[in-house]
Amino acid sequence: MTSLWRHPRCLRNEYLWARSWLRRLRNRPGAALLDIADRLRAGDPPGSLVLAMAESLASFSDDPSALTCSYLTAAHRATADRIRNWMLAAGFQSHIDAVGNVIGLLEGTGAVHGCLLSGSHYDTVVNAGKFDGRLGIIVPIVAATRLRRAGVRLPVGLQVIAFAEEEGVRFESTFLGSRALTGQFDPKVLDRTDGAGVSMRAAMAAAGLDWTAIASTAVNPDSVLGFVEVHIEQGPVLLDENLPVGVVTSIAGSIRNTVTVTGMAGHSGTVPMGKRRDAAAASAEIILAVEQRCSRYPGLVGTVGQLVVPGGAMNVIPGSCHFSVDVRAPTDEVRDAAMEDILAVSREVAARRKVEIDWKEVLRVSSVECAPQIRTQLADSVCRVLDAPAARLLPSGAGHDAMVMADITPMGMLFVRCGNGGVSHHPSETLSEEDADTAVRVFEDFLLHFGEAHVAGK
Amino acid sequence: MTSLWRHPRCLRNEYLWARSWLRRLRNRPGAALLDIADRLRAGDPPGSLVLAMAESLASFSDDPSALTCSYLTAAHRATADRIRNWMLAAGFQSHIDAVGNVIGLLEGTGAVHGCLLSGSHYDTVVNAGKFDGRLGIIVPIVAATRLRRAGVRLPVGLQVIAFAEEEGVRFESTFLGSRALTGQFDPKVLDRTDGAGVSMRAAMAAAGLDWTAIASTAVNPDSVLGFVEVHIEQGPVLLDENLPVGVVTSIAGSIRNTVTVTGMAGHSGTVPMGKRRDAAAASAEIILAVEQRCSRYPGLVGTVGQLVVPGGAMNVIPGSCHFSVDVRAPTDEVRDAAMEDILAVSREVAARRKVEIDWKEVLRVSSVECAPQIRTQLADSVCRVLDAPAARLLPSGAGHDAMVMADITPMGMLFVRCGNGGVSHHPSETLSEEDADTAVRVFEDFLLHFGEAHVAGK
Repeated sequence: MTSLWRHPRCLRNEYLWARSWLRRLRNRPGAALLDIADRLRAGDPPGSLVLAMAESLASFSDDPSALTCSYLTAAHRATADRIRNWMLAAGFQSHIDAVGNVIGLLEGTGAVHGCLLSGSHYDTVVNAGKFDGRLGIIVPIVAATRLRRAGVRLPVGLQVIAFAEEEGVRFESTFLGSRALTGQFDPKVLDRTDGAGVSMRAAMAAAGLDWTAIASTAVNPDSVLGFVEVHIEQGPVLLDENLPVGVVTSIAGSIRNTVTVTGMAGHSGTVPMGKRRDAAAASAEIILAVEQRCSRYPGLVGTVGQLVVPGGAMNVIPGSCHFSVDVRAPTDEVRDAAMEDILAVSREVAARRKVEIDWKEVLRVSSVECAPQIRTQLADSVCRVLDAPAARLLPSGAGHDAMVMADITPMGMLFVRCGNGGVSHHPSETLSEEDADTAVRVFEDFLLHFGEAHVAGK
Repeated sequence: MTSLWRHPRCLRNEYLWARSWLRRLRNRPGAALLDIADRLRAGDPPGSLVLAMAESLASFSDDPSALTCSYLTAAHRATADRIRNWMLAAGFQSHIDAVGNVIGLLEGTGAVHGCLLSGSHYDTVVNAGKFDGRLGIIVPIVAATRLRRAGVRLPVGLQVIAFAEEEGVRFESTFLGSRALTGQFDPKVLDRTDGAGVSMRAAMAAAGLDWTAIASTAVNPDSVLGFVEVHIEQGPVLLDENLPVGVVTSIAGSIRNTVTVTGMAGHSGTVPMGKRRDAAAASAEIILAVEQRCSRYPGLVGTVGQLVVPGGAMNVIPGSCHFSVDVRAPTDEVRDAAMEDILAVSREVAARRKVEIDWKEVLRVSSVECAPQIRTQLADSVCRVLDAPAARLLPSGAGHDAMVMADITPMGMLFVRCGNGGVSHHPSETLSEEDADTAVRVFEDFLLHFGEAHVAGK
């Protein structure tokens, strides 16, 4: 007679085996596609659908223990395929272009020539959250599907774009997808190599992408009516004000510097305070000056993110100190005025403390204003959906694909509340079902009125 | 016929060969011993003699390209032998005790029972200067020899001690020599190992030292009349006031803390200034508070020597920051009051900025007052030699063997001007011939009057 008793280790092994099979079943492309596609077609509540779609995409990762989706890895290609399949299930025409952007087109009635573009990126940072980028792909798909289910056909075409690369993790090639789409692709990046020495060109070939066709992927600006990006806020503003969504006024311009302060090392016990040329104390003054100056204007931010006394010892007065300064503002004028004041403080500190302070600019990006008409239309949609007298307008401190798209078309952005203190670029990035629902409904309203406005203005 | 032409590489090799032989000749123990011993006996000008002796000791090093003399290395043992040979040449009885201290005794007339002790350490930090420690061994030898040449016999005995270990580089066993001499040797340090895994016990055995005899090397305090240490200032005070020597009032008490500030990381572009919990900005406030508070009292010093935002990135608000705080003062009261005020600022910063600030005390050393009678006698000697109305009195911010010796006997210290901006613990540590000369003459005068005072006070 076979005993029914099983050693706990056997039970555990069986459990692990069963769990791994369940996971494989759940993750096999067809299953998830059918699952989400069915739910899309069935008109599932949009909030829970958005969360399920984000969860589904997060199942593909370079790292089994965290979400990391780097350009052209197996997980990245699987993500693209799943997005394309969703687009097809939702009634879009869809293809993957030469840099890996997934493009879905839903034709309009033809009453108005041209398309509204909407989208965001599907690559992620290392150990990422599930919504950064992906929310801006999922929301337009869900909103368009709902309109289609309701029998609405827009007068304008809608093109949803899942940009292949924005974060620049693997090849330091930020905004690769939107740059290709706007005809700004720089072929020099093809020679960049990743940490394993693989060039982008080789990675593209391995993924079946034809880099020689990139130049021809650029859209014709004449056929584009505008670009709208839905994005999780990645900050705490909407959360603190208890608002589900907000309309972006502009995307910040930024300047990054690395700073080296050179003073005079000395014995911590024997050099009197008045005779010191302490590089760390000089740096501390500048750190506080950055903070104070950047607190004086809404939307202006200044950050010292890197800071170190190299080879520091408890009993040695710092002879040198390195730090970084990142200043961003809604307009370049505000940013530049802040930088000027910070540099003036630095010069004063250097002279008073008899230290050398060397600033080296390592990045300068201009701010981009959101187009007033799209901003207004988004704000109107927010007011209608929330039944609120006005929408919260706020600048975006982070860069987005929308910055690049603004080069060819009027651009706007809708921010969605980021839970959990506003944490982003981290697994604890959070979006509530209610906020996802609101985002879809606002976007749906926007689509309806955007088309109408274009018919009226034709 | 042999050509006279030589390939430049051959010439260079010959030159290097000749140079290495010259260096060996110059460094062979006999040569230097005879040279310095002859100059001692011949009554050479004391300033140049002091510099030559320091140069001679600096020829022994663990590292051929810099002066490093760590406890019980070959260079360290050779240094001890040379000092012992000098003592013998100068008429001292001399032996090396169980921890490696070189002890030289010059007997007095016997008019007064007991000895004056003087000395400093012969080990060095890594990449050291030539005078830190060694000056306090050389000056009493030279001064005593000069008195002997002049036919003076002191009423008190003079014991010159070259302490084997003070810096603690090899085994982190600071003040080892003076602790053994004052009966405070902790046998637990015998088990400590150096970077190569060699225990102190094994290193002692290899050097022929009998660690079981350490306890019996302690001097009998009843036979000791006082201890005076001559030391290079290691700071810029005397240099800036254009004074060759100064008399130490007390040796600073110190407290060292490591501090961890924990705030909240966030995206440098998306978190408004008012919503940040920036660990680096909080740290900057404390760095400046340490500096400001410690500038309010002469002799009080505060240093943040280590400072880092771990894993800092340009576009991330620092979620944590580590730094060290070293506070020293001539008295423990002054030091403690400063620490209390700094901690109060820290609490206020933590509450206002909503960050956690953890202070961990890693060292607390009490300050030691110099004995008033020795201080006065040293000051009188300075006045007589410099023909000055008063001697410069100053605290010592660094620790010295004299701190430990103060446990058994009245203690005093004479500081000698440190050139080159006051730099010490570095090859560019500088002592001028004139200042060395002054130091010897002040010490000579002190020896004469110390003996007289003891005869008078008997």
